[in-house]
Amino acid sequence: MALDAGRIERDALEILDQLCRLPSVSAEGRELPETANEVEKLLAAAGFETRQLEVDGGPPAVWAEQRGGSEFTLLLYNHYDVQPVDPLELWDSPPFEPTVRDGKLYARGSADNKAELAVRLAVVRALLDEDGRLPITIRWIVEGEEEVGSPHFEQIVRANVDLLRADACLWEGGSALLPDGRPEVGLGFKGALFVKLAVRLLATDAHSSIAVVAPSAAWRLVEALASLRTADGRARIGGFYDAVREPTEAERRAVAEQSGSDEEELREVLGIDSFLDGLTGTALRERASFAPTCNIAGLTSGYAGPGVKTVLPAEAHALMDFRLVPDQTPEEVFELLQAHLRREGFDDVEVTVLDSAHVGATPFDHPFVRRVVRVAEAIAGAPASICPLAPPTLPIIDPLQRHAGVPGVAAPDNPVYAGCRAHAPNEHVRLEDVGPAVRFTYALLRDLADGE
Amino acid sequence: MALDAGRIERDALEILDQLCRLPSVSAEGRELPETANEVEKLLAAAGFETRQLEVDGGPPAVWAEQRGGSEFTLLLYNHYDVQPVDPLELWDSPPFEPTVRDGKLYARGSADNKAELAVRLAVVRALLDEDGRLPITIRWIVEGEEEVGSPHFEQIVRANVDLLRADACLWEGGSALLPDGRPEVGLGFKGALFVKLAVRLLATDAHSSIAVVAPSAAWRLVEALASLRTADGRARIGGFYDAVREPTEAERRAVAEQSGSDEEELREVLGIDSFLDGLTGTALRERASFAPTCNIAGLTSGYAGPGVKTVLPAEAHALMDFRLVPDQTPEEVFELLQAHLRREGFDDVEVTVLDSAHVGATPFDHPFVRRVVRVAEAIAGAPASICPLAPPTLPIIDPLQRHAGVPGVAAPDNPVYAGCRAHAPNEHVRLEDVGPAVRFTYALLRDLADGE
Repeated sequence: MALDAGRIERDALEILDQLCRLPSVSAEGRELPETANEVEKLLAAAGFETRQLEVDGGPPAVWAEQRGGSEFTLLLYNHYDVQPVDPLELWDSPPFEPTVRDGKLYARGSADNKAELAVRLAVVRALLDEDGRLPITIRWIVEGEEEVGSPHFEQIVRANVDLLRADACLWEGGSALLPDGRPEVGLGFKGALFVKLAVRLLATDAHSSIAVVAPSAAWRLVEALASLRTADGRARIGGFYDAVREPTEAERRAVAEQSGSDEEELREVLGIDSFLDGLTGTALRERASFAPTCNIAGLTSGYAGPGVKTVLPAEAHALMDFRLVPDQTPEEVFELLQAHLRREGFDDVEVTVLDSAHVGATPFDHPFVRRVVRVAEAIAGAPASICPLAPPTLPIIDPLQRHAGVPGVAAPDNPVYAGCRAHAPNEHVRLEDVGPAVRFTYALLRDLADGE
Repeated sequence: MALDAGRIERDALEILDQLCRLPSVSAEGRELPETANEVEKLLAAAGFETRQLEVDGGPPAVWAEQRGGSEFTLLLYNHYDVQPVDPLELWDSPPFEPTVRDGKLYARGSADNKAELAVRLAVVRALLDEDGRLPITIRWIVEGEEEVGSPHFEQIVRANVDLLRADACLWEGGSALLPDGRPEVGLGFKGALFVKLAVRLLATDAHSSIAVVAPSAAWRLVEALASLRTADGRARIGGFYDAVREPTEAERRAVAEQSGSDEEELREVLGIDSFLDGLTGTALRERASFAPTCNIAGLTSGYAGPGVKTVLPAEAHALMDFRLVPDQTPEEVFELLQAHLRREGFDDVEVTVLDSAHVGATPFDHPFVRRVVRVAEAIAGAPASICPLAPPTLPIIDPLQRHAGVPGVAAPDNPVYAGCRAHAPNEHVRLEDVGPAVRFTYALLRDLADGE
């Protein structure tokens, strides 16, 4: 039977619309069991055996399995949870009412990560329609805590190793079609360390005139933060860069040969004239791939309402995240951060780890990597743009590799693009990206049925 | 007729309870006209001719006048507005349901400044009961914007100079009775400059992994703020201290002779072991009286909710206030701040003046000062503790002096103490402070009827 990609696309968009109506904000614990149930129902209706994998303190992950016609077992990873929507007033349509405008479907969670789940499921349904069974065995895990750093995923993997073993995994994927027509293949993601810095110097907020003789938590936090960064924007934490290893020749070459054409689009979305230090092209991509970060994700102290409040704040908080590169580890960076603050005299700044993830990557020469690249290039008719280490973090990789021994790839089965505003207001998916994602996924599942 | 102070106290507490039920938060525009009406009704019922003085963009100020038996005209100043209540969860009883616990009346606005208004009105009602008319002429202005810096007060004064002229004014007053039994007399208040620092570097919040190549508003704000202060806590704004004049011998002596016994109480309320630089006694009071401040009243950037959000914030804001001493002016300090930021390369930090007030003070040797001190000392049986320049700001002083030519004093007619938590959760008035405030006010109004 010939592939009717258009029909599969329409099916994927229906699934996507249905999933995006569920406000599954993991940071706020909103409707997570409800969304898990909905995902489980969809998978069961497509012939999967399903379960919900639960551990204390986390929402359920949906597990599913369907035996297929060949030896190969592929694990699919998705997450059903989404980012918070604030600031809500910057959305042009309600975040949980999927709205199509100008060829784009707007909804929180559309790009990150419900569209890929929808594409995969639509392709599965099409393959079943065509053959009555899947070409390969598919295992699927859809978790509900990715947007808060997958804090229970490792525990879930360890408790269910036998359900998750597979020959390979498709992680959350890359762009099905970059602006230059090339498919995107990702081999790994940076690690991360999330910390909260807290300073509390007074028992209660005081009138700001007291600042003349009483200590200020806000100033202490500002001073502690300022001590963490040099004037040129590098981390000033002693030893922070010691473990950073030089990229290999193959990694450098892959980055040099990557598509670079989304720079302008990203600049436009961000509203900036240039990237840091005026970087462009290969130099920009090298920085993005191989440099760690030291970011302030949130600052809170004193009065944040309208008008003036004359207050000396009792406390001040900063939410920070560090993106880590090989061979940095979150454990070591946390120790270096604490040692820095102690050394600089900031004993009154309390640091708490909120979450962490190791760097996770699959080597260039793994057979599954080669196969994904081959299928992606055949479908797109263009060389794959390969990313050895993407700037974000996918904390699920390390547990899957370490405990279940499953190597993975971020394949071009995800209808997203650089301007999709994941994590920001007006998150969306371009409808034109759904077709390429469908065609790749369909081809890969068929291809994996043949021994290499 | 003999003074029945107990009856006047009870009357004052009834008035206070009534006023504190009105949530007149000026920063949020809550029930300001309603509260003005209530205040006007109370004054009219006590025999005053009343008006509401209005200017565009501000809530009404209540004006009242009642002719008395002598030449002397006294202007009373109060404000009916209060501070915001957040963080609400730190209140032990609802902020607008006055609650008496352990000899204290808890309510937002109780100490700042509804209790003093209640005391003054209760004394007026008692004097009318006793004599049928007031011993002196009283003019009264009760404004509704003190807690947001009295932005329209100068305009109101200029438009109503003839209604406000008087021989002298009682500003918002000091403690009726300090812990050592001395009454507090204040001759002036620091000036103030309130500014907002804003940095906006991106069109929209972005995923925090982008921080590796895109600029961070939060870091820029932290760096700009850090540049404003030295390691020892002084302002690092070029020229900031140039206009600060040395206190006079009389000012120094007054500060040296001030009551100092509320130090421990203030430390306890603030929850600190010591004040800045370990200051105590005269040195602490000198710093508090004669040093300007550079305070961060609010910090806002990125995510402030529960859990983790991996965001590179598009913008960052700081609310700052500077308390100014003679002969600093808010205009000059604003220029110095802007020049500093330009000089240090922070052209991307936008500074906006939210409000400002000049230093306002009455000289030591003014006859009204001498009379207030004499009455206060007679009533208390102890020397007055005189404050030449209090650390907070009373922006109403400068307009009253400059436009209406009215010198003033912060007299001990205010039942407040150092631990009253003005501007903080659990603001309250100690019931034991009401009597001394009543007795002083009663005595002063009678005393002013006699030529000196």
